[in-house]
Amino acid sequence: VEESLKPVFILIRPQLGENIGAVARVMKNFGLYDLRIVSPRDGWPNKAAQSMAVGAIDIIEQAKIFDCLPEAIEDINTIYASTARKRDLNKQVVCSHDIASELSNGAGKIAILFGPENSGLSNEDLTRSNKIITIPVNQNFSSINIAQAAGIIAYEISQLYEDVSFVPNQASEIATFTELNNFFVYLERELEKNSFFQVPEKKPGMTNNIRSIFTRIDKLSSQEVRTLMGIIKSLTR
Amino acid sequence: VEESLKPVFILIRPQLGENIGAVARVMKNFGLYDLRIVSPRDGWPNKAAQSMAVGAIDIIEQAKIFDCLPEAIEDINTIYASTARKRDLNKQVVCSHDIASELSNGAGKIAILFGPENSGLSNEDLTRSNKIITIPVNQNFSSINIAQAAGIIAYEISQLYEDVSFVPNQASEIATFTELNNFFVYLERELEKNSFFQVPEKKPGMTNNIRSIFTRIDKLSSQEVRTLMGIIKSLTR
Repeated sequence: VEESLKPVFILIRPQLGENIGAVARVMKNFGLYDLRIVSPRDGWPNKAAQSMAVGAIDIIEQAKIFDCLPEAIEDINTIYASTARKRDLNKQVVCSHDIASELSNGAGKIAILFGPENSGLSNEDLTRSNKIITIPVNQNFSSINIAQAAGIIAYEISQLYEDVSFVPNQASEIATFTELNNFFVYLERELEKNSFFQVPEKKPGMTNNIRSIFTRIDKLSSQEVRTLMGIIKSLTR
Repeated sequence: VEESLKPVFILIRPQLGENIGAVARVMKNFGLYDLRIVSPRDGWPNKAAQSMAVGAIDIIEQAKIFDCLPEAIEDINTIYASTARKRDLNKQVVCSHDIASELSNGAGKIAILFGPENSGLSNEDLTRSNKIITIPVNQNFSSINIAQAAGIIAYEISQLYEDVSFVPNQASEIATFTELNNFFVYLERELEKNSFFQVPEKKPGMTNNIRSIFTRIDKLSSQEVRTLMGIIKSLTR
């Protein structure tokens, strides 16, 4: 996805600067940069927003401020309204878990609207939206913080971008089969010496059980196999 | 899933009460209730935590406080350490997007550890964990707020619980094919009268195009079809 086609987050009449800053921070965590704010209650710039944004201060500094929603969406093709409460509107409701696959079909430049903390989006805001996006929450406590909602939606959308990616641990020298097998052979010889296998016909089953314990250790390293070997050597000294 | 088997969130040496409160709130949003706190920097109880929790004050009041991690995990079967930074450990790293399917296989009682805001989990904490859970973030700005991380993990896990569910809008009277078809027949007759179809052989294609526009309106209601009908009547009066 081209940077210019990444979704825009629009905060409508947000009340707390802290929440604006938290939205900016989590947007940047998930590779989003275009924050627009319609009629912030406490004016602009906002110290609390700057402070909460920490390393995402650039998102706050580049945020665009508008007097009303129509001005903020002039260049937008498809508008999603995020709502927690159920609304009686005949609009398609998209579950947050499905938003990445929905957006991967392409819908031009996307905006996602977030309403004020106390009241959510107005009916007028909802009328201007093409679809509704909802995060499934505990129906006995659905009051989700605006920055949490923005974070979850940004997190879901980020699956579409290559610059936000899952980095698995770079395993340092995972032990080979031979290294672990040498350990088993050594351990079993020592156990034999110490009469661990009292009933000969049970020996194959018992060695299998022992090998099964150690082969379930995920990503056992060569160094860790040497440590295990050292333990056995030490115990039999 | 039984309530008693729902995962436990453990905050280790958290610094800001605001973050503890925000974690409690988002846990409850996603149907989680067991919050444990190891050695909170500013002591306990914490006014800022209570204030940020709002409707999740019960989670704060029931939170259990411990001096050290081993006391907090006595009843836990499987421990996941949440980390944003890459760590050089030969532990399995589970991506947050996969955690629900991973937990659906069953691993007894689960705890998810969250480290202090400034430094993250210590190596000692990580050593006590069975696996690592990581949220894929922008590699140029991976500093995610602890309550945001807790929120995203709770959100993912909540897919396993029936009490947190997606509630689609209850559509009020979606129009039937016949209602919409009656509108099309009426509209086309009026257009015919007004010589809209100047080239007879193009009429079928043009009516198809018009019908295609209106059939793409998602969840068009009977009332809305009547409104459209009223518009045509008004324009031709």
